[in-house]
Amino acid sequence: MDDVEQAIQAKIHREDRIRERLLEETLRGTLLIDTQGERVGQVNGLSVMQLADFSFGHPTRITARVRLGKGEVIDIEREVELGGPIHSKGVLILSGFLGARYAADQPLSLAASLVFEQSYGAVEGDSASSAELYALLSALAGLPIQQSLAVTGSVNQHGEVQAIGGVNEKIEGFFDLCRARGNLDGQGVLIPASNVRHLMLRNDVVDSVQKGQFNVYPVESIDQGIEILTGVAAGERDASGKFPEGSVNQRVEARLIQLAEKRLAAAQKAGPEIAS
Amino acid sequence: MDDVEQAIQAKIHREDRIRERLLEETLRGTLLIDTQGERVGQVNGLSVMQLADFSFGHPTRITARVRLGKGEVIDIEREVELGGPIHSKGVLILSGFLGARYAADQPLSLAASLVFEQSYGAVEGDSASSAELYALLSALAGLPIQQSLAVTGSVNQHGEVQAIGGVNEKIEGFFDLCRARGNLDGQGVLIPASNVRHLMLRNDVVDSVQKGQFNVYPVESIDQGIEILTGVAAGERDASGKFPEGSVNQRVEARLIQLAEKRLAAAQKAGPEIAS
Amino acid sequence: MDDVEQAIQAKIHREDRIRERLLEETLRGTLLIDTQGERVGQVNGLSVMQLADFSFGHPTRITARVRLGKGEVIDIEREVELGGPIHSKGVLILSGFLGARYAADQPLSLAASLVFEQSYGAVEGDSASSAELYALLSALAGLPIQQSLAVTGSVNQHGEVQAIGGVNEKIEGFFDLCRARGNLDGQGVLIPASNVRHLMLRNDVVDSVQKGQFNVYPVESIDQGIEILTGVAAGERDASGKFPEGSVNQRVEARLIQLAEKRLAAAQKAGPEIAS
Amino acid sequence: MDDVEQAIQAKIHREDRIRERLLEETLRGTLLIDTQGERVGQVNGLSVMQLADFSFGHPTRITARVRLGKGEVIDIEREVELGGPIHSKGVLILSGFLGARYAADQPLSLAASLVFEQSYGAVEGDSASSAELYALLSALAGLPIQQSLAVTGSVNQHGEVQAIGGVNEKIEGFFDLCRARGNLDGQGVLIPASNVRHLMLRNDVVDSVQKGQFNVYPVESIDQGIEILTGVAAGERDASGKFPEGSVNQRVEARLIQLAEKRLAAAQKAGPEIAS
Amino acid sequence: MDDVEQAIQAKIHREDRIRERLLEETLRGTLLIDTQGERVGQVNGLSVMQLADFSFGHPTRITARVRLGKGEVIDIEREVELGGPIHSKGVLILSGFLGARYAADQPLSLAASLVFEQSYGAVEGDSASSAELYALLSALAGLPIQQSLAVTGSVNQHGEVQAIGGVNEKIEGFFDLCRARGNLDGQGVLIPASNVRHLMLRNDVVDSVQKGQFNVYPVESIDQGIEILTGVAAGERDASGKFPEGSVNQRVEARLIQLAEKRLAAAQKAGPEIAS
Amino acid sequence: MDDVEQAIQAKIHREDRIRERLLEETLRGTLLIDTQGERVGQVNGLSVMQLADFSFGHPTRITARVRLGKGEVIDIEREVELGGPIHSKGVLILSGFLGARYAADQPLSLAASLVFEQSYGAVEGDSASSAELYALLSALAGLPIQQSLAVTGSVNQHGEVQAIGGVNEKIEGFFDLCRARGNLDGQGVLIPASNVRHLMLRNDVVDSVQKGQFNVYPVESIDQGIEILTGVAAGERDASGKFPEGSVNQRVEARLIQLAEKRLAAAQKAGPEIAS
Repeated sequence: MDDVEQAIQAKIHREDRIRERLLEETLRGTLLIDTQGERVGQVNGLSVMQLADFSFGHPTRITARVRLGKGEVIDIEREVELGGPIHSKGVLILSGFLGARYAADQPLSLAASLVFEQSYGAVEGDSASSAELYALLSALAGLPIQQSLAVTGSVNQHGEVQAIGGVNEKIEGFFDLCRARGNLDGQGVLIPASNVRHLMLRNDVVDSVQKGQFNVYPVESIDQGIEILTGVAAGERDASGKFPEGSVNQRVEARLIQLAEKRLAAAQKAGPEIAS
Repeated sequence: MDDVEQAIQAKIHREDRIRERLLEETLRGTLLIDTQGERVGQVNGLSVMQLADFSFGHPTRITARVRLGKGEVIDIEREVELGGPIHSKGVLILSGFLGARYAADQPLSLAASLVFEQSYGAVEGDSASSAELYALLSALAGLPIQQSLAVTGSVNQHGEVQAIGGVNEKIEGFFDLCRARGNLDGQGVLIPASNVRHLMLRNDVVDSVQKGQFNVYPVESIDQGIEILTGVAAGERDASGKFPEGSVNQRVEARLIQLAEKRLAAAQKAGPEIAS
Repeated sequence: MDDVEQAIQAKIHREDRIRERLLEETLRGTLLIDTQGERVGQVNGLSVMQLADFSFGHPTRITARVRLGKGEVIDIEREVELGGPIHSKGVLILSGFLGARYAADQPLSLAASLVFEQSYGAVEGDSASSAELYALLSALAGLPIQQSLAVTGSVNQHGEVQAIGGVNEKIEGFFDLCRARGNLDGQGVLIPASNVRHLMLRNDVVDSVQKGQFNVYPVESIDQGIEILTGVAAGERDASGKFPEGSVNQRVEARLIQLAEKRLAAAQKAGPEIAS
Repeated sequence: MDDVEQAIQAKIHREDRIRERLLEETLRGTLLIDTQGERVGQVNGLSVMQLADFSFGHPTRITARVRLGKGEVIDIEREVELGGPIHSKGVLILSGFLGARYAADQPLSLAASLVFEQSYGAVEGDSASSAELYALLSALAGLPIQQSLAVTGSVNQHGEVQAIGGVNEKIEGFFDLCRARGNLDGQGVLIPASNVRHLMLRNDVVDSVQKGQFNVYPVESIDQGIEILTGVAAGERDASGKFPEGSVNQRVEARLIQLAEKRLAAAQKAGPEIAS
Repeated sequence: MDDVEQAIQAKIHREDRIRERLLEETLRGTLLIDTQGERVGQVNGLSVMQLADFSFGHPTRITARVRLGKGEVIDIEREVELGGPIHSKGVLILSGFLGARYAADQPLSLAASLVFEQSYGAVEGDSASSAELYALLSALAGLPIQQSLAVTGSVNQHGEVQAIGGVNEKIEGFFDLCRARGNLDGQGVLIPASNVRHLMLRNDVVDSVQKGQFNVYPVESIDQGIEILTGVAAGERDASGKFPEGSVNQRVEARLIQLAEKRLAAAQKAGPEIAS
Repeated sequence: MDDVEQAIQAKIHREDRIRERLLEETLRGTLLIDTQGERVGQVNGLSVMQLADFSFGHPTRITARVRLGKGEVIDIEREVELGGPIHSKGVLILSGFLGARYAADQPLSLAASLVFEQSYGAVEGDSASSAELYALLSALAGLPIQQSLAVTGSVNQHGEVQAIGGVNEKIEGFFDLCRARGNLDGQGVLIPASNVRHLMLRNDVVDSVQKGQFNVYPVESIDQGIEILTGVAAGERDASGKFPEGSVNQRVEARLIQLAEKRLAAAQKAGPEIAS
């Protein structure tokens, strides 16, 4: 092995240390990532970290909280100028979808906040926009999301899930965390259906998938994704325009109508401005 | 062939690769562009990509979503500072047209959002402003737009369609996508009438047009364009100031009045602020 | 002819080509400028284009649209940061005049938008502020403006028309367009009275004016100008404070009162916020 | 006379040309400055223009317009970023004075706009803040200001007039304009009383003052100044807190109360938001 | 005396000239600083001017004006970007104290403006925040502040007075002005109690203090300070939560309640928005 | 000892002087830090100061004040642009938690302000976000916080306390202040549970902890922390969704409901806008 090769090996080793460090801090609880159980308004998003000659995926906790408000979906990363334009565009797109799909003829009466928890740097790209939307739907529907799953994919104004980059690194990043915690059964990731042709996973991941342990779910729409994450049917509008009782979409719409009515009730007592 | 010529050929080849790559990604579904069927609030806009010594056209999906609101037309590209001033000017102009043409004596009560889907860079120029307006009218009227067609042209405050640049590249870009998908019959593009004299299309496009397959529609006004895209008459105000029942314009106005009334109804119950 | 002289001639020739090009594009309809007929909310403004050693005038279409709103006059050039400070100052001044002159004791209830159509670069100077005000008055009064005329001049908060620069180039620019379209009879321009002493027009323009074809109208006030542009008397308040029935000013005030009342009516039904 | 001296003379001559040019343009009506008659909402402010080794004063027309609104005093120079911080501070201070002195227990219901007419560059300093306040009081009281007078001086939140710089150049600038128009009788300037000790006027100005033609009025407060400019007593609150009938202050307060009541009346009909 | 020493002496002399100049301009009334009498909404703040090798203190007039409004405390220096972040922080802190201490369960209904009068440069530091709060309390309570006193010290959200820098220069600056005006009896300054250990005053100041002429008042809280400045007891809430009748705090709270009620009264007549 | 070593020692000594200076100023009362007693709306946060080769911890007083308002939590550091993006993100996250956890179906009706008192530089990092939330909860509940304790740790939108950096320096910084004041009994710090494994405290601190004097409390949630700081149970919602009477959470919720009702009451009298 000559000097150049040694130098390259050393460099890869140093960079790989960063990946290991992040994994280690997650295992020790410095970075909080659940991979078991379920939680309302919380989802595992998948990011790619790009070093000089090396990139790897790791999960980020995305949370959403909802309360009575004037219809604003607050993207906290953008508020503090940590979110790049594509990230911000993604959040505006998911807001366009949310606002127009549910109770579009009612005053939008929620105040929602979206956060990448324990993320301390700039956030760019729209590959987490579907994850953010799932967290928001979960918070609105009051339905918990399986923490054994992680999500990547962008979403457009019609609720279609679109392709993203780095799909293999992202899957492997979550796989490594789950394996390090000693469990692969029932763990998995949701990826855009249009990314399937980009799949070139490591052999250990492929083996685990083939054994029926780790799962890769290709999804084409938000409805497909939210069903996998919550285990509850998304629901389509029937002839009368109603979502089936108990479906995710029915619950989301019901909550938005309830918030509008609570706002109406407060306003009826006292006046409109009070209702926000 | 000497060295210089070879170098030039190689360069063109490299740049042409980018065009092919974009086309390929669209064919594979990484970039979502429909060229068949119909869709509410969605239109194929035409862009020109400019490389060093080479330019080509390719379609972009433009979507519009509408809900009850306070009259704002949100240009998402501008919100995240990806839209240049001319792009933003175009959206403000179409808003001026929309607001003053329909139900101008009623409080404007929509919240609309306009997006260039899967567009990750800066957007400049007003050549998509008519396409954005068509998407918005479609969303308001609830009338689907033929996805077999694509659109270019800017619009002024009186609804006239104005000339744009790169008309040939744009037409050829959409033609190439349609052909690659194996169908040219019934496909086509809407261009500003004042661009007709700039037409210098490739022979294959000219042949297809002459065979009655691919169509080039010169339009002078938004009314002309929306008729071609939806197959429904635009409609002119009669002596009493009303648009004909079932026409695009009647539906748009009716929806805007309905939104204003829904807002009024919510406000009547509870107070004004609640209605947005 | 020596070399230097030749170089100068060549340069002038090149720059003159730009002037010819703009004229040509206008004649072909790429740039939309009407020089016949009449139109509501549309006026020909006059700009000067300054090249290195050469300047010339050309007309710009300025449009205004009006609807029910909260009293805002939106200067679209400023909104997208294409308008320089003096341009923006001009629009604020005309708004100050408009708001204080008509129905000053009523809530201002219009939403107006002003645009330089097909203008793709920065706009500076206040020499179009009177033209913008005419377009706005026309849109409010519902009275069409003669497109055979073009306008230059700034306006102050008391409605006086003030001197501007480049008066000769501006007049000649419009003259050249009208002549190229084969008609000079009844064509003309409105200039500030205080610019008369700066007139040094080309012989062909002077000849045409002397023959009673092309007209140069010096104006001192907005009232004088709007009469020439619409053919309708501006009207002065009588002892009871009312403008004469049918006058421009009476129509503008009536429309502003009507908008305020429409807003009141909507508000009465539902609440105040709804009325905007 | 040696070369250096010649060069200095030439330079002064060139710079003095600018002064002459401004004066000439004012005399010819390119720059509109009234030095006779009276006008509501219009006052002559005094500026100093600073060249390299030379400075001179010249008057600027300051206008104020007032309508029903939500209490905003719009400083148009600041809106378009032509006003420096000290200028803007001056306008905010005069607004603080206005709002707290008159009808302080009523909702402030005016919309006022202040402009330096035909001023095309940056504006800095607070030496015009008293002039701006006079224009505003005149517009509110409906009392005309003598255009034979010009004003300099800043104002604090308690209505005291404060010292400014360049008092001699400012006085001489207005003197020269008046003399060039052939009249000095009854012409004059208002200066801060604390600037009297800085007076070192040219002999011709001193002579004219001594002959009782041109007047220099030192003022300590806004009340003193507005009396000189309008010829109407400012008025002090009596024991019951009322200003004397017909006084400037009574008229200003009455107009502010009237605007608040008009706003109340519109709001009573329809709702609050409508009232602005 | 060698050359270096001479140069140093000359420099100090030049810089001391600036101090003398400021003092002189104050004595002549160019800079308005009262050191006798009493005034509502006006207090002498103390600043330090820092030259290269030399610093000195001088007083600044701080004024506050109050009217009916929506609860905003406008820091005019910040509005025009002359106030640095620490200055602005100080004003926000005093607003937090004011809003939470008095009538915290009522809608805050004042509009207050704070100014450093005749201050033409950037303002930084929070050493005037207690002075600004005193001016505001005086304006609200309608109680005059003794102009024979001057103030330094910052304030926290609980109304405690905190240490500042340059305490000696500040005291000496006010001392010098008072002496130059020929009176020291009853003159004095309020300083933070925690600055007492930093006192190293000039002999003449110490002598005057010892003779009982000039006073240095160490204060720990806003309550202590306002008592010294107004001669009226600050007042503490009794068991029923009320401040003693006639105390400063009772008057401030009463005025805030009165403003809220006036706003309520206007709103009752007409609607809420009207009330601001 | 050679020269290099001497230089290093000297440097450390100089930097250590800064630490000593800060400590000294705190002991002398220039910097106000309570380490005894209890106070509503005030908590000791822990910061790390980073010098070139040296870092140390020191406490900062964080205060919160609350009044009736429209739901805004004002981060004063951010308002004046002294707060970095991570700091600001932390405050937005705690606001998201507060708004969604308590009375989420009521209009949020507080106005709260958060300050780092006597902090004169930029503030970055989210390690104080749990401390800020404790101060806010204390102000809302009206329950005092033990000043004998200090706090570090960030908080997420679900109220979990997350790991921070510099845990040892922070603990030692507070330990040193307490010891210098002569008391360690009952003093202590709250740290994130996930930071326990980073503990490597100085021997004197370890000794004191082992003797049962100084305490280190690892906490996982805001509920745990607020119990330690106030000595009052946090309280969990029972089956009917109510917090136990007298618990911190019940008091916070009750206060938020009371504020909403006070706002409603004012609005009922007069209109909505008035209520803020």
